[in-house]
Formats: sequence, C-alpha cells, structure tokens
Amino acid sequence: MSEQALIDWIRKTAPRFGQGVRVGIGDDCAVYRPARGEELVFTTDFTIEGRHFERPAYTPREIGYKAMARGLSDLAAMGAEPRFALVSLAVPDEALVKPLMRGVFAHGVEVAGGDLSWSGKIHVDVVACGGVPRGKALLRSGVKPGDVIAVTGPLGRWKKRPRPRLDLVERIRGRAHAAMDITDGLSIDLDRMLRASGLSCEITAAPPVARGATLEQAWHHGEDYELLVASGKPLGEGFYEIARAVEGKPGSPLPPKGWDHFR
Amino acid sequence: MSEQALIDWIRKTAPRFGQGVRVGIGDDCAVYRPARGEELVFTTDFTIEGRHFERPAYTPREIGYKAMARGLSDLAAMGAEPRFALVSLAVPDEALVKPLMRGVFAHGVEVAGGDLSWSGKIHVDVVACGGVPRGKALLRSGVKPGDVIAVTGPLGRWKKRPRPRLDLVERIRGRAHAAMDITDGLSIDLDRMLRASGLSCEITAAPPVARGATLEQAWHHGEDYELLVASGKPLGEGFYEIARAVEGKPGSPLPPKGWDHFR
Repeated sequence: MSEQALIDWIRKTAPRFGQGVRVGIGDDCAVYRPARGEELVFTTDFTIEGRHFERPAYTPREIGYKAMARGLSDLAAMGAEPRFALVSLAVPDEALVKPLMRGVFAHGVEVAGGDLSWSGKIHVDVVACGGVPRGKALLRSGVKPGDVIAVTGPLGRWKKRPRPRLDLVERIRGRAHAAMDITDGLSIDLDRMLRASGLSCEITAAPPVARGATLEQAWHHGEDYELLVASGKPLGEGFYEIARAVEGKPGSPLPPKGWDHFR
Repeated sequence: MSEQALIDWIRKTAPRFGQGVRVGIGDDCAVYRPARGEELVFTTDFTIEGRHFERPAYTPREIGYKAMARGLSDLAAMGAEPRFALVSLAVPDEALVKPLMRGVFAHGVEVAGGDLSWSGKIHVDVVACGGVPRGKALLRSGVKPGDVIAVTGPLGRWKKRPRPRLDLVERIRGRAHAAMDITDGLSIDLDRMLRASGLSCEITAAPPVARGATLEQAWHHGEDYELLVASGKPLGEGFYEIARAVEGKPGSPLPPKGWDHFR
C-alpha cells in the first residue's frame, strides 16, 4: 500500500467531531477555527519502541491506544476538552500503520493531521489539542496555602490500557486551583506542583493503593494516569486527600523519586 | 545533565514572541490564546536519522534547523505567520539536545512545548502552528479555471539550509487562490494541487532551474522549499509561471514522479 493510500485510509477512518476543525488531513496544514472565548492547550508525547513499550508485549493497537491516552491525560490535567490530535508515525513496516491508528481512533478524538515515515523502531508522536474557556486552564502553579491536595484514584499499578480522566474535567474546572497528571510518580509530581506554586505541604494521608501494588509503589511508581488536584475545599467522592499545602521551602517533604529519561 | 536541567535550559534559551502563548514549557500543556478573528493552522513533520539525513553529513545544528524549516515552509504555503512550535526530540545521546535545539531556535520561533526522550537514532518531530485571518488560509483545493500557476524560485537542487518562504506570506495572502509547498517534487505536487481542485492544466513554461541542476531535476526533485501558487492574475516579480489551470480530467498532464516513503 502506498503512503498516499494509507493517508487516504486514515482520512476516511478517523473519527470526526465536526467542530472547530475546518480542514483536516490532506493539505499542507490542518486549519482550526477557535470558538469565541476559547483558549487552546497543547501537549506532545513520544511513545517509542524499546523505551515506552516492547513488542510483542504490546500489540500495535495497544501502542496506538496508549500513545493517545498519554496526550488526553494531559488535557484532563488542564481541565480541557479534546479538540483534535496530530499523529506522527514512524514504523519499520507499513502493515503496522492501520492497527496503530485503530488504537488511536479508539479514543474517539478527531485526527486532523500527522506525518508518516519509516524508522527501524516504532516511534509515535501524538500532539493533543484541547479547548478551555479563556483563563480557566488549570496550571501546576495555582496551588494556594491551605489547599487540599488530592489524587483521583488508586496508584502504583502499571496500566496497559489506561483511561485518561477526561470524565473529571467538568468537576475540576472552575473548582480546583491547580492540577497535573501523575506520570512520573506521585512523589516527584507532588514535588513539581509545589515548587511551581512556591509552596510546601504537610502529608495528611497515604494515597489509595491499587490492587496488587504496595504503598511504596503508590508513592513512587509512574504512569498512573490519575490526576493530582489542589483545591480550596474538598472535591467530593472520588478525590482522595493526601496533603495540605502550607507556606515553606517550595517542594514536597518526601524525597522525590521518579522517572528521568536520561538516568 | 538531567532531563529536567535540559528542559530548564530549553525554556531559558528558546525565543519568545510574547504574543498568544500564555503558558509555555513546564506545565502539562502549553496554553495559547487566539486573537480575535484568528484561525490557526498546524503541521507536523518527522525528521529522522537514516531517512531524512545522515550523520556526520549533517551536524546536529543543521538537523534542528532543517526540522523547523520543514514546518515553517508549510505555514508559508497556507499564507500563515508562525505563532509557536512544539518540538519533540528522541536522541541516542543527551549531548545532542542543545545543538539540535540551537538549530531550531535559529528560526526565531517560540518553542512552547515538546518532549524529550531516548532513541537509538535521532528523531525530531516538529509541530508548527501559524495564524491566519479567519477564512484566509490558502488551500490546495482553491485553484480556479484560468488561474496562472507559478513557482517562487529555481528548483531541482537539494538545499542543506533551506529558507522557508515566509517572506512571501503577505504577498500571496488575499491574492492567491491556492498554494502549497514543493516538497515531494514539482510534478507530483502540481498533480496533487490540481486533483484537490478538480482541474487540469496546460504547461506554459519550464520552471526555473537551480544552478547545478537539470530541468529533469527541477520537475521531479523534492525538498525545494519553494511554493506552488495559483492566482487569477500574475503575482509579479519572483513568481515564475509554469502552467494555466483548465477544466479537464483532474491532475497534471505530466507523469508525476516523486517521493513515496514506502516505495
């Protein structure tokens, strides 16, 4: 199958929203028309064979699914709703393109563009774009003294088919002061959020531990695909308090352990 | 140097526009606030070692420069001005990150986000975002019968340090009916533009040939980083007419030859 035939298949098969995207796959660029008062948020993540997954432990479809899940988790962490994605694939075999893209499409997000090329190992780069009302994006730096800091589910267990917490966007937007997704481990991500906000915290409770995981893993494991949220009052069911923000030397009192791509 | 230290260096060193980008590197997502009446255009291109370049023929800085040039050329082809870029790097050695990014920064475009990871070969994925007044993006599909089809410079010679034709954006926007950049060879790109527009053409002149190239190369070579533009009247100096659009079987009468990543 030629590159053009694969692009035509992607264009025909990709989910459509019919909102905002004026021109999708097939021109030099995709064209997006923002709604009135809309701000856009963007995240990009590489998902690389030998680094983020191995074959055949992951099927091509699972790889595509996870690559998109990573971007959507970042959108949820900003309080944003998905608008479209750009998906760049470099693959050793063109037969991988369709199953990889089927995994991407499973999230139901419009794919407005991308690139297709050859590489000895699978490299997927997903850019996810989300929309949020002007000024309402939830940053890491928004924590206020006295805030409850909570996580959104049990932690510590690696997930093959993670569910980005887009279901929480409406509940946290306008109510939380800050949010981020837990990708490199709760302890390191908590430290990052507090540093960004110039605050410290007191640990008030252990995080909920996923079935089959240890408390150590819940604190220091990565790829949890849950959110870390700070707010002035409790957010209700499904949010598990772990700390309270206080003035002090910026950062978490826990030793941060986590994932660094070059260590 | 740790990943975090490299990200801090990128954040400090990247060019800033101070326009539109509300949150850049360092949060889960970048945040962009569109101007009133602004549409955004997006393009993404992989630049891969062993596929798009070899070392040491290209230095890391030249690789970064070219990776960004490819995206900016697509913005020019839409009649768009650069707003920001997202740059994802996967490298075999962290010492490559700074020179690669210096090549990216040489274009003066704000880098609002990206990803940094490890791979056995250099993979750079650049997303370029441009702005254009609402409804004014130049598509491939806009050619009208009778249009002059022109190229913007001599073709056929591979360029190590290509210059994206952003200098032409003001001249073509609002005057051209259609535009695209010549990346896979004039003959194949002309065919694509005419098919997208449902038209055929009559060839009226040979394209200008770059010094050291042949006419065959000018027609069928790729990576020219010039634009193919269709308009109702001549666009003036610096535009070289090659064809006139006519009704007929969609496509170019020339046999399209060009680059297909899987052939």
